[in-house]
Amino acid sequence: MALREIHELGVRAKSASLLVGASSAVVRNEALEVASDLLMSEASHLLEANASDIEQAQASGMDATALDRLRLSRERLESMAGGLRTVAGLADPVGEVIDGWVQPNGLRIERVRVPLGVVGVIYENRPNVTSDAAGLCLKAGNAVLLRGSSSAQRTNSALVGVLRRSLAKVGLPEDGIQLVEDSSHAAAIEFMRLRGLIDCLIPRGGPALIASLLEHATVPYVLDGDGNCHVYVDVDADLTMARKIVVNAKMQRPGVCNAVETLLVHADVAAELLPGLRKEMASVEWVGDDRVRLLVDDVGEVTEEDFATEFLSLKLSVAVVDDVNGALEHVARFGSGHSEAIVTNNLTTADRFVRGVDAAAVVVNASTRFVDGGELGLGAEVGISTQKLHARGPMGVRELTCVKWVIRGEGHVR
Amino acid sequence: MALREIHELGVRAKSASLLVGASSAVVRNEALEVASDLLMSEASHLLEANASDIEQAQASGMDATALDRLRLSRERLESMAGGLRTVAGLADPVGEVIDGWVQPNGLRIERVRVPLGVVGVIYENRPNVTSDAAGLCLKAGNAVLLRGSSSAQRTNSALVGVLRRSLAKVGLPEDGIQLVEDSSHAAAIEFMRLRGLIDCLIPRGGPALIASLLEHATVPYVLDGDGNCHVYVDVDADLTMARKIVVNAKMQRPGVCNAVETLLVHADVAAELLPGLRKEMASVEWVGDDRVRLLVDDVGEVTEEDFATEFLSLKLSVAVVDDVNGALEHVARFGSGHSEAIVTNNLTTADRFVRGVDAAAVVVNASTRFVDGGELGLGAEVGISTQKLHARGPMGVRELTCVKWVIRGEGHVR
Repeated sequence: MALREIHELGVRAKSASLLVGASSAVVRNEALEVASDLLMSEASHLLEANASDIEQAQASGMDATALDRLRLSRERLESMAGGLRTVAGLADPVGEVIDGWVQPNGLRIERVRVPLGVVGVIYENRPNVTSDAAGLCLKAGNAVLLRGSSSAQRTNSALVGVLRRSLAKVGLPEDGIQLVEDSSHAAAIEFMRLRGLIDCLIPRGGPALIASLLEHATVPYVLDGDGNCHVYVDVDADLTMARKIVVNAKMQRPGVCNAVETLLVHADVAAELLPGLRKEMASVEWVGDDRVRLLVDDVGEVTEEDFATEFLSLKLSVAVVDDVNGALEHVARFGSGHSEAIVTNNLTTADRFVRGVDAAAVVVNASTRFVDGGELGLGAEVGISTQKLHARGPMGVRELTCVKWVIRGEGHVR
Repeated sequence: MALREIHELGVRAKSASLLVGASSAVVRNEALEVASDLLMSEASHLLEANASDIEQAQASGMDATALDRLRLSRERLESMAGGLRTVAGLADPVGEVIDGWVQPNGLRIERVRVPLGVVGVIYENRPNVTSDAAGLCLKAGNAVLLRGSSSAQRTNSALVGVLRRSLAKVGLPEDGIQLVEDSSHAAAIEFMRLRGLIDCLIPRGGPALIASLLEHATVPYVLDGDGNCHVYVDVDADLTMARKIVVNAKMQRPGVCNAVETLLVHADVAAELLPGLRKEMASVEWVGDDRVRLLVDDVGEVTEEDFATEFLSLKLSVAVVDDVNGALEHVARFGSGHSEAIVTNNLTTADRFVRGVDAAAVVVNASTRFVDGGELGLGAEVGISTQKLHARGPMGVRELTCVKWVIRGEGHVR
């Protein structure tokens, strides 16, 4: 695919976005339901395409975590189809009057929610992003340009084929959903510079993608950055609850951004909590500071780099802190602004943590794994923003819209 | 000022932002009121500093429009002081619970408004931006780094001195408001790359600044772009109203972004409207298309470049269009996404225009000059966003905040 062709995809997306944006919610919801049905009726075709991607990935030595992210199953397809159906059932965000008032001079003002136009999504090898992102963009009246990773090429191509047929079946332009099939670095940069064609770019990838974006992008973007998440177990924690939460946050699905990477423990409960927890997490590699290693065997020495790393695997940094302030300082230094949890029964301490943490989500007495659009009731998510502008945290359908001011007068002049 | 010093300003702003963000609304409002009083009690000092800037600007041949933007007067100081007092009186945005719900599993969710942290503002020579931007940032619990133009250096320095003293008087850190005094290009680029120190950069300047930002910035930004605004006079317009609106939109203050640059007239009323309007606008240079020039004398030939230009002066492009669709096509091609107005008494046509225009603000039967934070009830504005993400149109105090998710459970795990 020549770079000119990427520009051409953008032009077609822009043109399709006008028709998608002007379509009724009834039609867009119908497309989502058709897509949901097709995902299941074409499951074997989709699973075949995925098996072929998986085979090639295994041959090229992809690690287990990445393979897990790439793999489709009937169950995961069902979940993707269910996600589309859930999105179809959400309230239509387009046309919502967010607020409105009358100025003293009689000018009538409304702020109305409208589609963004064209949304671009660059993502790694998790194929559910393909249907989640396309579904949410369509729901919000946008066209979408998807660029997955080369390792998921066959899977994504098959999925996008299904989605485009769903658009066509309800009379919407197929180009409302397009896949960029060129996985070269040059193509990614060209994609980031489609200014005037892409209204919002959502990159879901590692530090190299983010760095490239900061250097090259000229289109507006919302960063879906790292999740270097912490759980702080306070002196006033229910330690049984704390154990359950830490185990869940690390082990239930270690390869995702809302998994915990560092456990911080109040000094006064460390001796009671850590030895038993270490046994429960036998399959997890622990690295810890001196105070941790005095209490627990089988713990490597933690480095500053460990504290700064999103492992995305069965590895956990552990540190003992003096109190909630120590936890806040550690989080301020190493956190990536994604999700930070505290386990405590002390209301004052919980409030102090909630106020003191500068992150998209602060979690009290629950697993960080809940910081997810589906779990929080958004239907599905197009990403989790770790930036502060436009959207922060899980991005659902509302975050794929913008606002238009409508000002009505009767000949008003200044 | 060495580039290292700009970084140091950023570090101090970040540190001050923690104290400003944690302060109560009472204290921040008091600082705004003290600042409002000081602007008036120190008026002669401030006007002297401005006179010195004006003198130097005149000597260096600054044009009349730019001089108007640079000039302070007692009246403008009063308006700035009044703006600060209005902002003090606005509802506190910090801590507002935007929405909240309980998930079926019992997780309690809230989305809470919190300060952004450090806001950077790069602006041209209008000194009221100094107090408006600082006041709104402070109201929203942020620290602010201001970088004005070299031509307003003495004025801005005097204003920032007053604002910093106001912070000190109420016990807030002076570094909550800082002025970057290095007006070099290298300093501007350094400023745009203070990633991790500036949470939101708002550039208010011309195309060269925007282009530089797109190439160099690594901090998140909200573009305050050009205002290439149109007024479309429909066949169903009240032509007396239309004349008033066009005259006001062009002539009341031509040097600002919400002034009109192109008049579009429905073919069937052009003959009735244009000759009289030309006389009323005798001091304005008109450039028009062939259909305009057949009807009116003293009209130069309009070029595509004219249509694409924000004149910011007493110059107007004029074109005859066949109908509202012709107007929408012209606006889609040349508009900058700022403010677009229609004059019509036809409800269907008005709705078609409102829906069809892709801009921050659509105005029906009023002057584009109302697209301004103060005029629309925001108290004051820190800029007018021409982008779609985060904020669109006039940005007030709410647009200087972000959201934090707070999730509370009772030991919830997935």
